[in-house]
Amino acid sequence: MDISVSIILDKLKVALQGVERVVTSRSTLPILNNVLIKTSKSGVEVVATDLEVGIKFFLGGKVEKEGSVTVPGRTLIGLVNSLHGDTITLESKNNILRVVCGETKASINGVPADDFPVIPEVEGGRVVKLRTEVFKDLLAQVDFAASSEESRPVLTGVYLISGGSGLTAVATDSYRLSEAAAKEKLSEEFNVIIPVRTLHEIRRLVGDTPQFELRLGENQIMVATDSATLVSRIIEGEYPNYKQIIPQKSDTTVEMDVQEFSDAVKTAAIFSMEGSNTVRLNIQPSGTVEVVSESSQVGNFAAKVKAGVKGAGGEISFNAKYLLDGLNSFDTPRFTLGMTNKTAAGVFRPSGVEDRLYLVMPLRS
Amino acid sequence: MDISVSIILDKLKVALQGVERVVTSRSTLPILNNVLIKTSKSGVEVVATDLEVGIKFFLGGKVEKEGSVTVPGRTLIGLVNSLHGDTITLESKNNILRVVCGETKASINGVPADDFPVIPEVEGGRVVKLRTEVFKDLLAQVDFAASSEESRPVLTGVYLISGGSGLTAVATDSYRLSEAAAKEKLSEEFNVIIPVRTLHEIRRLVGDTPQFELRLGENQIMVATDSATLVSRIIEGEYPNYKQIIPQKSDTTVEMDVQEFSDAVKTAAIFSMEGSNTVRLNIQPSGTVEVVSESSQVGNFAAKVKAGVKGAGGEISFNAKYLLDGLNSFDTPRFTLGMTNKTAAGVFRPSGVEDRLYLVMPLRS
Repeated sequence: MDISVSIILDKLKVALQGVERVVTSRSTLPILNNVLIKTSKSGVEVVATDLEVGIKFFLGGKVEKEGSVTVPGRTLIGLVNSLHGDTITLESKNNILRVVCGETKASINGVPADDFPVIPEVEGGRVVKLRTEVFKDLLAQVDFAASSEESRPVLTGVYLISGGSGLTAVATDSYRLSEAAAKEKLSEEFNVIIPVRTLHEIRRLVGDTPQFELRLGENQIMVATDSATLVSRIIEGEYPNYKQIIPQKSDTTVEMDVQEFSDAVKTAAIFSMEGSNTVRLNIQPSGTVEVVSESSQVGNFAAKVKAGVKGAGGEISFNAKYLLDGLNSFDTPRFTLGMTNKTAAGVFRPSGVEDRLYLVMPLRS
Repeated sequence: MDISVSIILDKLKVALQGVERVVTSRSTLPILNNVLIKTSKSGVEVVATDLEVGIKFFLGGKVEKEGSVTVPGRTLIGLVNSLHGDTITLESKNNILRVVCGETKASINGVPADDFPVIPEVEGGRVVKLRTEVFKDLLAQVDFAASSEESRPVLTGVYLISGGSGLTAVATDSYRLSEAAAKEKLSEEFNVIIPVRTLHEIRRLVGDTPQFELRLGENQIMVATDSATLVSRIIEGEYPNYKQIIPQKSDTTVEMDVQEFSDAVKTAAIFSMEGSNTVRLNIQPSGTVEVVSESSQVGNFAAKVKAGVKGAGGEISFNAKYLLDGLNSFDTPRFTLGMTNKTAAGVFRPSGVEDRLYLVMPLRS
């Protein structure tokens, strides 16, 4: 059925910006590059999905004809973003969308809405209220550690655990692991693996709202705001029992300045064997950590960083990138590194912060 | 001969930043990725060249051994930029450069300076004083129109003409041409084709100095500041007689708002045939310019822009990118377009500005 509707231009811009990242992110199935526009008595829906995440925006509008059409998202977004004016009229005929705004007229070739995937409704399930600040904070501390390789799907998500003392977020790509917790007692206990991209879309969607509702269904989660609904699949499978790889104690504990150590690691990486990114830490009980790297091609590098060292010290090597990723996510001026020997995981924590841990597997050097 | 010298760290940083773009820009000849460091009684030279442009920085320093060495620029720049401290010591032995700064020590594998290309001295020739502001202004108005294709070398440069009423800069890639002139009477008359990259490096080198000296040699130009010297080749060959393609008069002249017209052209480009970027202007004597585009795949677009039209009007098509490049370089709120028919070049000028012209060849549509 053809559509015909007038909408406030600025509201359409907001809706299209809201679905933009979902619509343009993949293109294996051509219809996923399209945005669905659906008109009904209750107004206009603007919908995009990449089969993992689906977002629906609801707008008011003066609906003349109830129907639906899908058109390429990039074209529609590019057009609408460049328009100026108060209202915009959208009319479809034989799946060609006619757009009129002031002295500008355009037609965009579309395809029937029948082929557009249905965004599932998440009904029932459990509903928890989350404080946006807590959610954003936990996400920023762990998201970078998730895997981008599809070979182990559970590792491409963030593991969220509600229960016991509060809410915990975990991500790992099996080379490093980041865990952050907040003393945030939720109304429901659960654990769920949510795709990192979904969490980023939720962060965008909730914006500055102080809190939002997360609905946990069987295979989906849903977040609804006043003007939009996001539905995403949950990653199925069992999250690795990560607690068992966290060393219970460390023979040596080192405290250093985050900035000073990061600078040394960053520079050391320039000298590490091409592509390996290996930097060696030589922890001396006298109170210095020597950051060392070498490559037969480039040369070699050593910098001394002042450190508070408890224990016997020793040598351990890490991937510089993994160290820097973790240190960048710390908000404190200092941090501690716990190490036992050159084959056991290094445990990084921001100084004075509880409930936060970053684990990096050492490299052989 | 090995080198040994202590330098103020911040001065070395400035020198390396000054040569950075030259040293990292090409790599066909491996030694061009290197920076030459040469010590002598009078201090330290830091040199880089890509055979087109060469830059030499001079620094003071406590020289212990006079000699020279070359090391990979990226490694040295990455290292030095990350260092903190007052002084840095550079020592070479068997073409390995040892760098010491505070608690940081590094060795960089280099190659002998014998293989490093000599930066020619430009002696004699004519010397003109240029005001930096005028130079930067002319450059910004024409550089984008130069060609990036090496097939016609003269078109990859900016043509500078001193004489008559002042200083004129011209660039063209044969599809569009930009000309800007300043009523700046110089001490010498000349015309010279200078590579666009050279001009950008000169702009960086002279920074905020109010004026600088340009020395025009036989095949090279040179710019010297207090701390550095830049030498570049001149592009040989004859610049096309561009004056003859500038239409002497236009049958129709249109005046429009730069922003309004740019917006319409930008949006129209979304709808133009894939890769063609064609937009059609339909100039109506009643006082509107319709900006039109269409593609069988995407759809079609038309926007009306208010215009002051003198003459009979008509249709003419252009590459949207060329229009936008030119309009972006205009500083005025309005501009004029002179056109005669759909096959003659369109002449764009910022309203109320003399000595400025942007020519675009029309497309068949």
